[in-house]
Amino acid sequence: VVVTREDCLARDAQDPIAWLRAEFAIPDPGVIYLDGNSLGRPSNKTLARLEHVLHEQWAAGLVESWDDWITLPLRAGDALGGAFLGAAPGQVVVCDGVTTNLFKAIRAALELRPGRRVIVADPDDFPTDRYLIAEIARDRGLTIRWLSSDIDEGLTPAALAEALDDEVALACLSLVAYRSGAFLDLAAVTEQVHDVGALVVWDLCHAVGAVPIALDAAGADLAVGCTYKYVNAGPGATGFLYAASGLHADLRNPMPGWMGQTRQFAMGPTYDPDPGVRRFMTGSTPMLGVAGVDSAVETLAPAGIEALRTKGVALTELLIALHDAWLAPLGFRLASPRDAARRGSHVSLEHPQALAMSQALRRHGVVPDYRVPDRLRLGPAPAYTRFVDVYDAMLVLRDLVLAGEHLAVPEDGTVT
Amino acid sequence: VVVTREDCLARDAQDPIAWLRAEFAIPDPGVIYLDGNSLGRPSNKTLARLEHVLHEQWAAGLVESWDDWITLPLRAGDALGGAFLGAAPGQVVVCDGVTTNLFKAIRAALELRPGRRVIVADPDDFPTDRYLIAEIARDRGLTIRWLSSDIDEGLTPAALAEALDDEVALACLSLVAYRSGAFLDLAAVTEQVHDVGALVVWDLCHAVGAVPIALDAAGADLAVGCTYKYVNAGPGATGFLYAASGLHADLRNPMPGWMGQTRQFAMGPTYDPDPGVRRFMTGSTPMLGVAGVDSAVETLAPAGIEALRTKGVALTELLIALHDAWLAPLGFRLASPRDAARRGSHVSLEHPQALAMSQALRRHGVVPDYRVPDRLRLGPAPAYTRFVDVYDAMLVLRDLVLAGEHLAVPEDGTVT
Repeated sequence: VVVTREDCLARDAQDPIAWLRAEFAIPDPGVIYLDGNSLGRPSNKTLARLEHVLHEQWAAGLVESWDDWITLPLRAGDALGGAFLGAAPGQVVVCDGVTTNLFKAIRAALELRPGRRVIVADPDDFPTDRYLIAEIARDRGLTIRWLSSDIDEGLTPAALAEALDDEVALACLSLVAYRSGAFLDLAAVTEQVHDVGALVVWDLCHAVGAVPIALDAAGADLAVGCTYKYVNAGPGATGFLYAASGLHADLRNPMPGWMGQTRQFAMGPTYDPDPGVRRFMTGSTPMLGVAGVDSAVETLAPAGIEALRTKGVALTELLIALHDAWLAPLGFRLASPRDAARRGSHVSLEHPQALAMSQALRRHGVVPDYRVPDRLRLGPAPAYTRFVDVYDAMLVLRDLVLAGEHLAVPEDGTVT
Repeated sequence: VVVTREDCLARDAQDPIAWLRAEFAIPDPGVIYLDGNSLGRPSNKTLARLEHVLHEQWAAGLVESWDDWITLPLRAGDALGGAFLGAAPGQVVVCDGVTTNLFKAIRAALELRPGRRVIVADPDDFPTDRYLIAEIARDRGLTIRWLSSDIDEGLTPAALAEALDDEVALACLSLVAYRSGAFLDLAAVTEQVHDVGALVVWDLCHAVGAVPIALDAAGADLAVGCTYKYVNAGPGATGFLYAASGLHADLRNPMPGWMGQTRQFAMGPTYDPDPGVRRFMTGSTPMLGVAGVDSAVETLAPAGIEALRTKGVALTELLIALHDAWLAPLGFRLASPRDAARRGSHVSLEHPQALAMSQALRRHGVVPDYRVPDRLRLGPAPAYTRFVDVYDAMLVLRDLVLAGEHLAVPEDGTVT
């Protein structure tokens, strides 16, 4: 055996950010939650903050609470940008959902490269990204050049080089792949794309709060992401958009609304966009979502992204070691990068009966994720997952497969 | 005096939906809130529902709560559509914000009239609508034909007729005007626009929950709206989009995401839109926003829109009568339709010192709205506003103006 349960308990005892788990609301201590990469757990701070928004700000403060809310999308953006994105203030706004922000970012980027007719995209990217890019390309008469990414290992510099030339307007890429967890080199990819005069629009959904991101240092152009995974801001919480300050003056929001207007309460006849990133706002932002982001960053920032990343690597290394020892002999295959430096905070395990196993796991109080057709996706979020949780979950998985328990589960259950 | 305080108390005692006020959280019974047309008050049901989403669904249920959430945007849409929009099931989805939904609706409608080059719009419409229409027109190479609307009385059939011909692809109109409260005839306007072969995209923000709306009966095409005003779903709560079922097959979402995909968890290579209104969904919807809408409809539906409308008319009639008696002599002017049938549930009063007055009113515990440059906008939401509240508020306004109190207030205060 590579590691014992006692080893794991010892690692938890020595974990410098073990205290962070107590900051989270965990009404179900018997559940092992390995789907924080889909919907993160709420922190106590976030629950308290949303209660405050409901009772003090909405019910009691009524419309006057807009005095606070009106600037919160930018304040929460600065907080998120500082803690997790390597973004100096004034470049991140918390507003709308990922799809809407991705649409705005891609369309704005395309206008900066009007003569170029190609969008580079990844056929293994999350569906929304692919569907959206396809529709934008159709609408603008552009061509999509699909990358040759490896479904488990992600994109290589050589595969990217093949797709790049001076016809490329932009590449739209996920920093951490939604299925495999493959983690790209932000600075190197940005530089490689910039070298042909193109821009990069980054999707940070599976990266933000899980891996260090240094957008400013990488010279990034535009980025978007969600906040309901490793940021733990709430189900469907508000997304964010980053735009490098040097680009602001030339970025056009294709979907302008009054919240992006310079003097929004003047309600003037023509749209005069805010000089900064606020130009990407549209209408009134869901304040429960934005407050969720703000309080979630407050929860995680004291731990710091470096410590979260260190623990995330250790948790997934443990998961892979146990896979190698226990599951590989049972027909599992690791479907994520083995190199920790090239992997985010989740791991996919391939097995033909993955769906049935995910259902059997839930009956044992272990919550995994499942991705069609044959992958268990396991995300031991470093903020609240213990080493012993990973150990126990892998043990449950091994034992139920050994016992053939999953074979009794119908394959038509609900999949989320 | 046209009416006494005792008359108002008597009307409250006879009000058939007086019970509805007790369904709302009113921690500040001393405050007279006349800005429900900007941010509605929360009902107790809505607060309880959002607590449930926070604690039972998110913290305890975790990702498995998506089993409920995944269909809620359509269930809440059906509930909203049935209670307030005159829409049969399957035509309304609660998702995204107003700007995003308006963008999707306008772009989808334009694709149904490819040869036509004109968008008809109202120069007095809410800024977001105007900015968005201007940007879409610029992008698509279309012309905007601005209507000659009266700033106080709204659009007349004759003014609309002037703008309509067979070059018009669509008209984008607000059913109730954001400033004056002018209330159009949904069926007549729709028919008038249809008569030239064009479509109407309705903005229902200031109408939904305040006036009866019969989209299906009017043969409406597409409509959008917010839910944080008379629906009381929460600050920045999720918006909605209505699309008539007969159009679904031909409506293209210009911003497709995985939640609009037929088999969304198959994550297939190409976008295959849901056959129904779900095709207008983008990504993961803010569940606190959608649950807010669902519970808000549950709160109001037992009263019914007809009773809410009857009371809304009575409240604004009272407000106008008191204006005529007390405020007109002090230099105020009614800046809303005098005909109740042509007016929503809010009223604007014009006065050069409106800003200072709005600030002075707040110091007396009366919360009005203000719109540049010279309008007090008063929205006595029928769900929780009493006749005596309108009486008391107008009395406070009269007396502070008579005393010249507002003249001492600096004009640079915060305006929301």
